[in-house]
Amino acid sequence: MNAAPLANDTFLRACLRQPTDYTPLWLMRQAGRYLPEYKATRVKAGNSFMGLATNVEYATEVTLQPLDRFPLDAAILFSDILTVPDAMGLGLSFGAGEGPRFAHPLRDEAAVMALQVPDLDKLRYVFDAVTSIRKALMTTDAEGRPCGRVPLIGFSGSPWTLGCYMVEGAGSDDYRLVKTMMYARPDLMHRILDINAQAVTAYLNAQIDAGAQAVMVFDSWGGVLADGNFQRFSLDYTRRVVAGLKRERMDNGVKSRVPVIVFTKGGGPWLDEIAGIGADVVGLDWTVNLGAARRLACDRVALQGNIDPNVLFAPPEVVAAEAAAVLDSFGRPQRPDGTWDGHIFNLGHGISQHTPPEHVAALVEAVHTHSRTLRSR
Amino acid sequence: MNAAPLANDTFLRACLRQPTDYTPLWLMRQAGRYLPEYKATRVKAGNSFMGLATNVEYATEVTLQPLDRFPLDAAILFSDILTVPDAMGLGLSFGAGEGPRFAHPLRDEAAVMALQVPDLDKLRYVFDAVTSIRKALMTTDAEGRPCGRVPLIGFSGSPWTLGCYMVEGAGSDDYRLVKTMMYARPDLMHRILDINAQAVTAYLNAQIDAGAQAVMVFDSWGGVLADGNFQRFSLDYTRRVVAGLKRERMDNGVKSRVPVIVFTKGGGPWLDEIAGIGADVVGLDWTVNLGAARRLACDRVALQGNIDPNVLFAPPEVVAAEAAAVLDSFGRPQRPDGTWDGHIFNLGHGISQHTPPEHVAALVEAVHTHSRTLRSR
Repeated sequence: MNAAPLANDTFLRACLRQPTDYTPLWLMRQAGRYLPEYKATRVKAGNSFMGLATNVEYATEVTLQPLDRFPLDAAILFSDILTVPDAMGLGLSFGAGEGPRFAHPLRDEAAVMALQVPDLDKLRYVFDAVTSIRKALMTTDAEGRPCGRVPLIGFSGSPWTLGCYMVEGAGSDDYRLVKTMMYARPDLMHRILDINAQAVTAYLNAQIDAGAQAVMVFDSWGGVLADGNFQRFSLDYTRRVVAGLKRERMDNGVKSRVPVIVFTKGGGPWLDEIAGIGADVVGLDWTVNLGAARRLACDRVALQGNIDPNVLFAPPEVVAAEAAAVLDSFGRPQRPDGTWDGHIFNLGHGISQHTPPEHVAALVEAVHTHSRTLRSR
Repeated sequence: MNAAPLANDTFLRACLRQPTDYTPLWLMRQAGRYLPEYKATRVKAGNSFMGLATNVEYATEVTLQPLDRFPLDAAILFSDILTVPDAMGLGLSFGAGEGPRFAHPLRDEAAVMALQVPDLDKLRYVFDAVTSIRKALMTTDAEGRPCGRVPLIGFSGSPWTLGCYMVEGAGSDDYRLVKTMMYARPDLMHRILDINAQAVTAYLNAQIDAGAQAVMVFDSWGGVLADGNFQRFSLDYTRRVVAGLKRERMDNGVKSRVPVIVFTKGGGPWLDEIAGIGADVVGLDWTVNLGAARRLACDRVALQGNIDPNVLFAPPEVVAAEAAAVLDSFGRPQRPDGTWDGHIFNLGHGISQHTPPEHVAALVEAVHTHSRTLRSR
């Protein structure tokens, strides 16, 4: 049993492969530009992404917006994966209409040797946002006792994914600079990844201390690596992070388990290995057959995913049918022996800014309804 | 035995899983901007990609350039996958420093209903280039008899990959337009794919008639599809193409088999199904473990791939070591029972324009040398 004081702990139960009445869902990037209320808050913050992320009040406001609109089963901290390298002094900025950019990317040995685990005080705004969001999520249960509405997920980029941005200095089509360093100077790459692993571990533990009830590691660029290098340059460092995380927290004297989710975009070929690094949940993109993934990994982890976010551009009845197909692909979570496998419904990637919000409503409704039906069969 | 009149038929033999003295290699996009001589020819052609591709003399010249520099084991027609939709009237252009763009993308039902299999006469410049390249590849064998230096590979985009460009009108980050059509109006998408499959089949057969000794279907964007949709919207149509291809050709009275290669970028999760559509060879990107792929598929197909093209940015000794690692991952191609599995060495994606040519020389040398050693162990 999960003992977190929550009105709705379905998400945490699914992460821990405990019985649930329905399949919980949340959406990667659920607080985002497809919501008009998000855009309104962003205007207040000077139309700046980091203006939102660094302001505790605004970060709290946008985190709660999707929950007020849809009955989602988890909240996720509004922030960016690149806060950590920014705190390392790389100088993060978001140009208008552009992706993130670092003023001081790691391009030579001197820059790599000067890199250090950042002072966590520089990330205080993140931990303050976590605490503020937890407060804003407070409600009362049927007996009038205070409890949270849904759990709050904290997150970070993986050491490799942060390393990609830190060397490239921006997004990339071909990862030429970071892969050149990896192939030509693996010693420098390993130094960056070692520091990143230490920093990410400390960063996520501080989020847990501040109130995060689950944490997720986004290995967004693990899938660009060759077989063999994925294991050496991405997975080994994510494993170190997972091994260093606090897995329990106390809330009002109640101890609860903090599930760890690892998501490697394009990680399908390595699911068996990813499922073995000690995480509670593995996130999957839409290329993965959920039934096959369940057979391979569900004795070790719960699975999170994996509908194509582009499904949300189809009419609501198609959205509902595609959501049902994903749930059916996983199947009834109860096993014949009475134990449960874990499934958290999600997109296989962040939601598009062009998504019609009413299609999201259709998705949430379909997942909750169809997954209840599936359990009763 | 493959009976093509060739000085070097190692590539064709490997495709057909026949014994070879070493592992043959060629490189996707081997005639390209990383070669100064290519850039010089391109300047002569008005610095235009299509100016090169539509001029038989220039297309022949650039096709042979990499063979004159490196002892590669196959030539590949210099052309573009988008010649077919261009012939359908979609209006292909390449802006300066940009990717391809269609003036008339398929955005509504009327446009889709008006689409037709193109008159192959509009693609005459491609077939003429094939015939011209075959002539330019002629040499004489030890007894002074005419023969080709190496085989010539023809190619096309897959029905799905062409369909992506035809609906999006250009490259895409998220494939929102084509996936919206696929999810919301699958009938329209299937109509496009049906026409594309007919057109691609006729186009490749005409290349074979003109002299192509092997053909390759590039399913560059199959990997963006969800499991299930990949099978329905990409693989089923590639299967139709493969089923409609001429598999034998006559050269100077000698009959030879025309191997068919299918390459789905990001297709690793579906290797077992791709290996079952009737192709002779399956191309693999670098995320795939070649040893595992061999165990899964080598009773049905040869494998082509799969080094990360970014390896070529490392120093030559690293390039050599990484090439050896790929060959070792496939292993000795002879089986204990005396039969052979097939491996053609290649990159897992097109070569980068920033690649130093001398690193390509190191790669070719390492593949030829190490694969001979491997066979003798």
